Amino acid sequence: MNLDFSKGLIPAVIVDDHTNDVLMVAYMNEVAYRKTIETGQTWFYSRSRQKLWNKGASSGNYQTVKNIYIDCDGDTLLIRVDPQGPACHTGNKTCFFHQLTRDGDIIQLEESTAHTSVFDNVMAEVEE
Amino acid sequence: MNLDFSKGLIPAVIVDDHTNDVLMVAYMNEVAYRKTIETGQTWFYSRSRQKLWNKGASSGNYQTVKNIYIDCDGDTLLIRVDPQGPACHTGNKTCFFHQLTRDGDIIQLEESTAHTSVFDNVMAEVEE
Repeated sequence: MNLDFSKGLIPAVIVDDHTNDVLMVAYMNEVAYRKTIETGQTWFYSRSRQKLWNKGASSGNYQTVKNIYIDCDGDTLLIRVDPQGPACHTGNKTCFFHQLTRDGDIIQLEESTAHTSVFDNVMAEVEE
Repeated sequence: MNLDFSKGLIPAVIVDDHTNDVLMVAYMNEVAYRKTIETGQTWFYSRSRQKLWNKGASSGNYQTVKNIYIDCDGDTLLIRVDPQGPACHTGNKTCFFHQLTRDGDIIQLEESTAHTSVFDNVMAEVEE
């Protein structure tokens, strides 16, 4: 099993190691992947700007890498991180704060209700 | 906010609605997205076979869609599903069953230890 960069950039799914929330998806080339491992912070390759970027370098919202997983065919990464702040450039904790309704509309979620899961309820009960 | 297929295929991160595990990442074109919404099951576009596929059509491991989220720039999907069986063609629950060690090796995880999280422990305690 090796990571396969032959098809081009590899998507990296970034997950909050504490909450299990999917925070964002960004792309890595081999250099970004190497820098992520070397520095313990996430580095990506911007498709629009066509250059490397270190998540948090401008915002301060660095992501400290906790674990890296590779999928069965070696062309997707799952990276669990300890986020130092919101993942999204909008200031939202996660980039996935729009939801498709049953009516086919796309609505913006309130920060507090985004990705509420059974685990949130369990944790709330445990903490009470 | 609209889903933007202008850059090509859109990656869809598939998450188990019960466990919060990231199961797989696959790609959708607009037809696959529409069929996913219409049928309530996941449909993807295979980059290698260059055709639509309905997850579970050959294996029986369909994924029932629970919720669909769209990221801030409309070019990535997060789909929470109720999986009817393993997501991975290898028979693993999730496609992300390889982990990068601190020594730089890629090791295969045992099914039972893959993606163990604090939530797994909490749930185990709650169920006991």
